[in-house]
Amino acid sequence: MRFFSDNAAAACPEVLAAIEQANRLDTAYDGDAWSRRLDDAFSRLFGTEVEALWIATGTAANSLALAALCPPHGSILCHRDAHIQNDECGAPEFYTHGAKLLLVDGAGAKMTPDAVAAALAGIRNDVHQVQPAALSITNATEYGLVYSPEEVAALGALCRERGLGFHVDGARFANAVARLGCSPADLTWKAGVDALSFGFVKNGGLCAEALIFFRRELAAATYYRRKRAGHLLSKGRYLAAQLLAMLDGDVWLRNADAANRAAARLAEAAGADRLVLPVEANEVFIRVTAEEAAALRAQGFDFYDWGPGEARLVTSWDSDAGAVDALAAAIAAL
Amino acid sequence: MRFFSDNAAAACPEVLAAIEQANRLDTAYDGDAWSRRLDDAFSRLFGTEVEALWIATGTAANSLALAALCPPHGSILCHRDAHIQNDECGAPEFYTHGAKLLLVDGAGAKMTPDAVAAALAGIRNDVHQVQPAALSITNATEYGLVYSPEEVAALGALCRERGLGFHVDGARFANAVARLGCSPADLTWKAGVDALSFGFVKNGGLCAEALIFFRRELAAATYYRRKRAGHLLSKGRYLAAQLLAMLDGDVWLRNADAANRAAARLAEAAGADRLVLPVEANEVFIRVTAEEAAALRAQGFDFYDWGPGEARLVTSWDSDAGAVDALAAAIAAL
Amino acid sequence: MRFFSDNAAAACPEVLAAIEQANRLDTAYDGDAWSRRLDDAFSRLFGTEVEALWIATGTAANSLALAALCPPHGSILCHRDAHIQNDECGAPEFYTHGAKLLLVDGAGAKMTPDAVAAALAGIRNDVHQVQPAALSITNATEYGLVYSPEEVAALGALCRERGLGFHVDGARFANAVARLGCSPADLTWKAGVDALSFGFVKNGGLCAEALIFFRRELAAATYYRRKRAGHLLSKGRYLAAQLLAMLDGDVWLRNADAANRAAARLAEAAGADRLVLPVEANEVFIRVTAEEAAALRAQGFDFYDWGPGEARLVTSWDSDAGAVDALAAAIAAL
Amino acid sequence: MRFFSDNAAAACPEVLAAIEQANRLDTAYDGDAWSRRLDDAFSRLFGTEVEALWIATGTAANSLALAALCPPHGSILCHRDAHIQNDECGAPEFYTHGAKLLLVDGAGAKMTPDAVAAALAGIRNDVHQVQPAALSITNATEYGLVYSPEEVAALGALCRERGLGFHVDGARFANAVARLGCSPADLTWKAGVDALSFGFVKNGGLCAEALIFFRRELAAATYYRRKRAGHLLSKGRYLAAQLLAMLDGDVWLRNADAANRAAARLAEAAGADRLVLPVEANEVFIRVTAEEAAALRAQGFDFYDWGPGEARLVTSWDSDAGAVDALAAAIAAL
Repeated sequence: MRFFSDNAAAACPEVLAAIEQANRLDTAYDGDAWSRRLDDAFSRLFGTEVEALWIATGTAANSLALAALCPPHGSILCHRDAHIQNDECGAPEFYTHGAKLLLVDGAGAKMTPDAVAAALAGIRNDVHQVQPAALSITNATEYGLVYSPEEVAALGALCRERGLGFHVDGARFANAVARLGCSPADLTWKAGVDALSFGFVKNGGLCAEALIFFRRELAAATYYRRKRAGHLLSKGRYLAAQLLAMLDGDVWLRNADAANRAAARLAEAAGADRLVLPVEANEVFIRVTAEEAAALRAQGFDFYDWGPGEARLVTSWDSDAGAVDALAAAIAAL
Repeated sequence: MRFFSDNAAAACPEVLAAIEQANRLDTAYDGDAWSRRLDDAFSRLFGTEVEALWIATGTAANSLALAALCPPHGSILCHRDAHIQNDECGAPEFYTHGAKLLLVDGAGAKMTPDAVAAALAGIRNDVHQVQPAALSITNATEYGLVYSPEEVAALGALCRERGLGFHVDGARFANAVARLGCSPADLTWKAGVDALSFGFVKNGGLCAEALIFFRRELAAATYYRRKRAGHLLSKGRYLAAQLLAMLDGDVWLRNADAANRAAARLAEAAGADRLVLPVEANEVFIRVTAEEAAALRAQGFDFYDWGPGEARLVTSWDSDAGAVDALAAAIAAL
Repeated sequence: MRFFSDNAAAACPEVLAAIEQANRLDTAYDGDAWSRRLDDAFSRLFGTEVEALWIATGTAANSLALAALCPPHGSILCHRDAHIQNDECGAPEFYTHGAKLLLVDGAGAKMTPDAVAAALAGIRNDVHQVQPAALSITNATEYGLVYSPEEVAALGALCRERGLGFHVDGARFANAVARLGCSPADLTWKAGVDALSFGFVKNGGLCAEALIFFRRELAAATYYRRKRAGHLLSKGRYLAAQLLAMLDGDVWLRNADAANRAAARLAEAAGADRLVLPVEANEVFIRVTAEEAAALRAQGFDFYDWGPGEARLVTSWDSDAGAVDALAAAIAAL
Repeated sequence: MRFFSDNAAAACPEVLAAIEQANRLDTAYDGDAWSRRLDDAFSRLFGTEVEALWIATGTAANSLALAALCPPHGSILCHRDAHIQNDECGAPEFYTHGAKLLLVDGAGAKMTPDAVAAALAGIRNDVHQVQPAALSITNATEYGLVYSPEEVAALGALCRERGLGFHVDGARFANAVARLGCSPADLTWKAGVDALSFGFVKNGGLCAEALIFFRRELAAATYYRRKRAGHLLSKGRYLAAQLLAMLDGDVWLRNADAANRAAARLAEAAGADRLVLPVEANEVFIRVTAEEAAALRAQGFDFYDWGPGEARLVTSWDSDAGAVDALAAAIAAL
C-alpha cells in the first residue's frame, strides 16, 4: 500500500495497448504516423493551433521550454519550492547554458503577481545582472494546490507587461484541470501561457510527456535542441502513441480525476486540523507525530516524511480503492 | 519492403513481454527491482565488474560517455563519418560543454592507429589548442565494417600510451559481436575500452540502450549528468526490463545474427563488383545507377540513396525473409 | 568629489611606471620575464608555494576559481549579497557551465559556519539535486566588513569537513589585510582557503588582478580555461608588471591602508547612530534622509543611494584628503 | 632581432600617452568619457553607424562576434587554418555553447565562394545535423594574404543568399587595409560583413581590440555576454583611450604600413623561389633548409619554424630598420 509517488504507478491499459499497436515498422524519429498526428490532436484539445513534441521526461520538457524562453544571460522566476529548482539537478541551467533561477516565495508553492513583481523590482536594469526573461509556475503545484484560470491570467498579464515568457510545469496539469473543471485552454494560452510541459507519466503514461508551444515560433529551435540533447528517440512512435491513447476518450482526465478523488478521500478522513494545506489535486500533506507515522507504516502504508511532523501522501490513477479506504480509516483512527 | 534503417524496425516480442511484466507499481527512477539488476547482468556478460546505466537513446549514451572522458577544453578524435560528428546535432558538444571533435580519415569509417597517431601529431601541446582527451570509434562502423578484437586492442594500446580515454559507439555492437564470434569482453575492456554505448534499439529494443563503464570510477558523475540532461526517466523499470529481456537467453545476439544473415544474403546476391564495401554487419552499400535504383523501387523496395551511384540497404532483426529473398533476386537480376 | 566606487579611481604611479618599463618587445602571452616571476613573488608574499595567474578582471578571476572548484552539476554556497550572485551577469554560471549558486543569509554580507551548515542541511544527497561543491566568501565583504583569520578558519574547517572547495573573492582583500594587520597567509591558506581572487584594480591597479591557487593542482586546467575564455592577453607582461609593481615595497598594502583611513575618517564624522554597519574597510554605509542626501550632493559630493534611507560612500587609495575632510565635515553638519 | 610575432611588439607611443591621459578618476566600466566616444569614432571611420565595443583580446572579440551570429546548435564555416579553429583553445565553442566549426580548405588560408558552397552542400537540412549559421574569414589571413573588397563581397553575397552571418577576424585588418589602399568600408559592411574583430594589439596597441557590429541589432546581447565573460573591465577608459589614440591621425594605418613595408623588404630579399606564398601583409613564409635556418639563428635572428623546410617571419609596427635590413641581407646571402 504505497503512497510514495505517482511516478511509481503503473502505466494504464490504454497506454500499453497503444504501444502494442505501434509495434510495427514505421519511419524513424518523429516522421511516423503517430508523431505526425500530435500537433493536430493537441490543437483540438486546446482549441488553438499548437506545436506538440513528445519528450521522454518532464525534466527535459521543462528545460526545453525554458531554453526557448530564456537566453543564457537571462533569468527565470520560479517558486522557491519549484521542481525545476530542487529536483532536476540543474537541468534548466544545463539546457539554458547557465541562466539563473530567481526564487519567489509563496504559500503552497504558489506565487502571486505581487510576489513576482517584488522579485522583479529587485533587479537592476544593467549589464551587471542577469535580466528576467521568463516566469515558470507549476500547476498543480508541488504542494498539490491549483492555480485557477484567473490566477494564471493575472500572472500572464504581468508577463506580457514585463516582456517575460510564461511557462507552466504541468507535471500534474491533468489533476489541475480535473479539479477546476475548466478547459485546458482557460488554464493556458487564454491566460497568456507560452509553453506547457503537459505531464502524462505521473498520470498513467509510460515514458512520454508532451511539450506544447502556444507561441508556435518558439518551437523551431526546440526540434534541434531536442535532438542535441539526445531526446529524439529513434522509435518515437511509441511515445506519440502513448499520448494519443491518453487524449483519446479523455483518458488523461479520467485518470487524473481518479487520483484526485482518492486524495480527497484521504483529506476528508484527515480533517482540517491535520491537513497542512488544502487538498486540491492528488497530494495530501498531513501533520503526524513520529509515533503516528510509525503506526501508519506498521499497518503497511508507505509514504515520505516531509520535514519534521509532516508526511506526504500521493495518490495516482490506479490507487487501490481498498488501500485508500484502509489508509483513510487508519488516519481517522490516529 | 523497407530497407531504410534498423531504427524503423519493431520491438521484438521479448521486449514487449518484459514491458508488460514491468507494468506494476515499483520504486521510481532507477531504484526499482529491474534497474538494480543491471550492473550484475552486464558484469556477467562482460566477465568483469561494470556499471551499466539505461539510457533512452544512443545519442545520449554516446554523449554521456564522452562527457565522462573529455573536459570542455579537450578534444575527441573520431572518424570523419562518425555518427557523433554527423548525426547527433552537436550532442557531444552540448554534453561536454564545447569540446571539439577532431576528424580522422579511413576507409569504411574505420580508423587505424597510424591515422590516429598522425592526427595527434598535428596538435601542439600548449594552451592555445584543445588537447586530445579521448578516442571514439564505432563498431560496427557507420559503413557496416567491424573492428576485430586485435584492431580495437591496437587502438586501445595507443590510447593508453597517449593518455586518451577510449569510447566505443556500439549502436550496432551486437552485430559486430555476432559477426566476429568473439566475446563481448574481447571487443571491449580486454582491448582497452573504457566506455561502451551498447545499442539495443536498432536490434529489437523499444527505447533503451545501455551505457557501460568498464572504468567504473567514470560512472560516478554520469548519474548526475543523466539526471541533469532529463534522461533519468521516472519509470525507469520499463527501460531496464527491455535490456534484461534481451540479455536473457542472448536475444541480443540472436537478433543481431538474424540481421547480419539477411545482409549477407543481399551481399551474396549483389556480388563483389556491385558492393562498395565488404558486408560485415547489417548494412549493404551497393553501386546502382539511377535507373537501377528506380527499378528496385518500382518493385516496392525502399532504401536510401547514398551519394551518387550508391545505395544503402539496412537489414534488421525482423527483416522479412520473403522480402530479403525478393530483394536479393531483384538485385541479382539488375 | 566622487565617492561612487574604488573602481573609478586612477591607477597609482607605480603601476603606470611599471607599464612603461614593460613597454618593450618580449615573449607573448605569459612567457615573458614579468609573467614568469609571478609564482615566486606571490609565493614569497604568502609564505607557501602558490600558482599565480594574472587576470584582467575580478569577475573572470572569480569565475575561473569557481570553475576549478565546482563541476557543472555542483553548487556554490555564497552570501545572498555576493558580487558573484548579483554583479557578474551570471559569469560563474557561464564558466562553470551552469552550476548553481545557493544563497546564504547573514548581516553585512558575512556568513557564519552555522548559516552555511544550515544551508547544507537543506540539500538532499541524491542525483535529483545539485550537490554542494564549494563555498565562496568575499573579504572584505560587499558591505565593507572583514572576516578575521579565525572566522575564515572556522569556515575553512567546515569546508574540509564537508568536502567543499573554499574560494575567497578578494576584490578588497588588501583592505581586509590592512585592517586586520594579519599576514596574507593567516587569512588564506592557513585558514583553509584553496583559491583567492586577489584584487588590485580597485586598489590602484589598471587592468590586472591575481588569481592565486593555494592548492596548486587546481591551477592546471585553469591555464586552458583562461585561454578559452579569451583572457590570455597576448601582451601579458603589462599585467604581470602591474602586479609586481604593487607587491614591490608593499604598495598594495599602503594603498589599501590609505583607503581604509579615509573611510575611517568618514565613519568617525558620521558617528555610530548614522552608520548602518561598522566601517572596517573602505566602504561607509550611512543612514541619510532624501533631503540629507540631496544636501550632500548639492555640496558636490557624489555617491550611490543604497536602498531607501541609506547611502554608500567608497574611498580609494587616492581619495583626496581635502575632499574627504570636506565630506566628513558635511556629514557631521547634517 | 626577433621576428616571432607581432604580438611580442611594444605598444606605440600614442597608446602609452593615451593611457597616461586617461589616468584620472572617471566613471567605471564603459560609462566613461572615452568609452562613450567609441561608437562615433568608429562610425566615422567606417562611414556608417556601427556599435563598437572594446575587448581586451582578439580571441574574446572573435568569440563574442560568433556568439552573436551562431546558436549553440549551429555551425560556423571557417578555414582549416583559422585562428578560431587552431589557436583559441576552443573559445568559439565556449562562447557559443558548443557550436561546431566546419572546416574549409584553400591556399594561403583563403576560402573561395566555391569552396564554401561545396562545404554547405555537404550539410543535410535536418535536425540531425548542426545547421550552418555563419562564415568567418580572417583578413589578412593567418598566412599573410589579403582578401580584396571584391573577394569579400563575393563571400558576402553567398552569405546573404544562404542566410549566413558574416564575421571577419581582423587581427591584422589594418595590414589588409594598408596593403589594399581601400576604405575600411569597402572591406566590411559594403561587402556584406556583419561583425569585425578589429585588431589593434598586434599593431601597436597594449590591451585593446575593437569589436565592430555593422548590423547593430547584433550588439544588444553582446553587452551582456561581454560582462558575463568577465570582459567588462572596470577601468575600461584605458582600453577606449588606446583605440581612440590609434584612430586619431590614422596611427593604426601608419603602423600597419610600417609592418607591411618591413615584410615587403624581406620578401624582396628572399625572392620568388624562396617564398612559400606571396607577401601581402606583415608575414613572410620562406623555404629554408634546417641548415639555413640554423645559420640565420646563429646571426641572431629569432623566428618560428613552420613545418618542415619552412620558416615564418613576422614584422611589426616597430620592426627595427637595421634588423630588417640585416635579416634581408642574411636571407639574400643564404
